[in-house]
Amino acid sequence: MIDPLARLVGELSRLPGIGPKTATRLAHHVLKAPIGEARALAEALIEVKEKLFHCSTCYSITAVDPCRYCRDPERNRKLLCVVEEPFNIEPLERTREFKGYYHVLMGALSPQRGIGPDQITLGPLLERLEGVEEVILATNPNVEGEATALFLARLLKARGLRTTRLAFGMPVGGDIEYTDEVTLGRSLAGRQEI
Amino acid sequence: MIDPLARLVGELSRLPGIGPKTATRLAHHVLKAPIGEARALAEALIEVKEKLFHCSTCYSITAVDPCRYCRDPERNRKLLCVVEEPFNIEPLERTREFKGYYHVLMGALSPQRGIGPDQITLGPLLERLEGVEEVILATNPNVEGEATALFLARLLKARGLRTTRLAFGMPVGGDIEYTDEVTLGRSLAGRQEI
Repeated sequence: MIDPLARLVGELSRLPGIGPKTATRLAHHVLKAPIGEARALAEALIEVKEKLFHCSTCYSITAVDPCRYCRDPERNRKLLCVVEEPFNIEPLERTREFKGYYHVLMGALSPQRGIGPDQITLGPLLERLEGVEEVILATNPNVEGEATALFLARLLKARGLRTTRLAFGMPVGGDIEYTDEVTLGRSLAGRQEI
Repeated sequence: MIDPLARLVGELSRLPGIGPKTATRLAHHVLKAPIGEARALAEALIEVKEKLFHCSTCYSITAVDPCRYCRDPERNRKLLCVVEEPFNIEPLERTREFKGYYHVLMGALSPQRGIGPDQITLGPLLERLEGVEEVILATNPNVEGEATALFLARLLKARGLRTTRLAFGMPVGGDIEYTDEVTLGRSLAGRQEI
């Protein structure tokens, strides 16, 4: 393969979920596309690295510090929602159901991967609890997210805080027949009066 | 979403096969990765656009004109292999079975998409036939590739050239049970003595 093309395929292959075949297909698209398209993508790549950083309060991604969530005076100071990653915030915002503040852990506890309480933003979280009445644990519904939620719940309850976890259950629009038994079990256990 | 991030997601979404969800995942990877990685990808994108172009003889992608295939004196001038796109050459080269020259059509005939003989490199192909004895039609095994092969075969045979088509059949390592009936039909029709 000609050098510049091989180099582009190599760089694209470093992206998650992009194997050599997809990288080759993308590189050929770039070759065919107008140079303006390649330039716009190249500039956008550099811009996110140069202009964005983590909010010094909540660790979400932002171009100004504090971020737009932490700056928003309309939000409820009594509610704090804890997520693993910055990009977990936007799906929660889209629900329009939550009007409190956020805290990004920058990961989840994982003994296998050597990630303990010191590798997540636990210290900064504990320093933000003044005036907070409820902490909503919105870590991922997997083994690491569950372990992190349980660890935090123990710590926060000891400080007298109401600590809640996002509900588990059937996806809306889903089908009992195609819902796995673990989810269905959690859905049963969490059943509510109607 | 913050502007530079939304911009990167938008640019990534323009790539083929990359939807908004994949684009968001890739953008978050770039955010987390070292700036050197983003810069290397950005530079590789610009480099392929600035340094590569089509060979003036065969239309393959190259950084020098004529390309490394057209410059190679060891190849057999009597054999010309016709492909649809520049990236169809490399899989053929990897077989090590073909030692002739190539011609890239830069597309396939498609009345639905308004691509007729004037939109592919048919004229330059017809000007390259001196000394050629066999033209191998290596267009894709789909409706447009077949139509293109049939169209070219008629034209080339009228000029007294031997015109061949890549064989259709079962993939090596495949399974009759999982081979579709159209492929199996072609495989039967093209059966050979052993």
